[in-house]
Amino acid sequence: MRILGIDPGSIITGYGVIDSDKGKLVHVCDGSISTDSKTPLHERLNIIFDLLHVVVRDYQPDAAAIEEVFFAKNVKSAIMLGHARGVAMLCVGKARLPLFEYSPAKIKQSVVGYGNATKEQVQNMVKALLKMPKIPKADASDALAAAICHIHHSRHSTNVALQIEDCKLKILKLRK
Amino acid sequence: MRILGIDPGSIITGYGVIDSDKGKLVHVCDGSISTDSKTPLHERLNIIFDLLHVVVRDYQPDAAAIEEVFFAKNVKSAIMLGHARGVAMLCVGKARLPLFEYSPAKIKQSVVGYGNATKEQVQNMVKALLKMPKIPKADASDALAAAICHIHHSRHSTNVALQIEDCKLKILKLRK
Repeated sequence: MRILGIDPGSIITGYGVIDSDKGKLVHVCDGSISTDSKTPLHERLNIIFDLLHVVVRDYQPDAAAIEEVFFAKNVKSAIMLGHARGVAMLCVGKARLPLFEYSPAKIKQSVVGYGNATKEQVQNMVKALLKMPKIPKADASDALAAAICHIHHSRHSTNVALQIEDCKLKILKLRK
Repeated sequence: MRILGIDPGSIITGYGVIDSDKGKLVHVCDGSISTDSKTPLHERLNIIFDLLHVVVRDYQPDAAAIEEVFFAKNVKSAIMLGHARGVAMLCVGKARLPLFEYSPAKIKQSVVGYGNATKEQVQNMVKALLKMPKIPKADASDALAAAICHIHHSRHSTNVALQIEDCKLKILKLRK
């Protein structure tokens, strides 16, 4: 099972692809799509759509996962975020992929073990779980975390939960 | 000059196409795209995009006009509206059309003559200006109004302004 995680934003949209190979998490790719805020919005949305489309075409995920959004700094930020999120969801819809939405707390709970985890804690756990050589950037990390969350809630959840526990123990040992 | 006006919404998206023939407004088409709120959002966005794409492909507008949005009932409504608006803007971006945004007050000012006009006043003026047999539905009317506003602000503005004044006089006479 291959999952695409997406973390949309009007300036930076993160993405990440993960395989769940017999319940074992395998990092496939991750990255972020940055657009210049001086570029007209409809052209920026075009860039986000086209690059996400290339990721979907090249990596052929089986499903996609995205964070639910219920809050924003203000209504203007919410509308701006909605634009990018709508375009990302359209890209998934055009590829006829099933799309799963998870609350930020559920994603943090799945990856770190508690819903109030910091961005840094998520990044550290994503790095450890996917055996990445470097800590992923925040947007890519959030996208990978959404994908991990989906795998966690799928049929391979027991194995993934064991890996998460194992990583948490390793991180704790390293800190001692 | 042929202008596509769009009034995006997560449930209903209105559209309208108007020609400015030597400064004279000519109604080409209008309609609305309704999606079932029970359908998953990414599929609804797909429907909005595909149907708007058909309008763009079939009517070949030279530019598009859309209302600026700065407020919504709450953050959740703002994000939902942003999704549909982002997808509508993407459709315009994919067709490489220039996109113009106008504030609600500017659109009302252009069509009715004052920025605090009611929805019904806009609908009546749109019907009169475009010599439509029936009052257009609210979403289509808002889309047509955005297109009229753009034409008003383009180089043919003098002629359009005269037509608007003429229509206002006719409506006033009918009410007397």
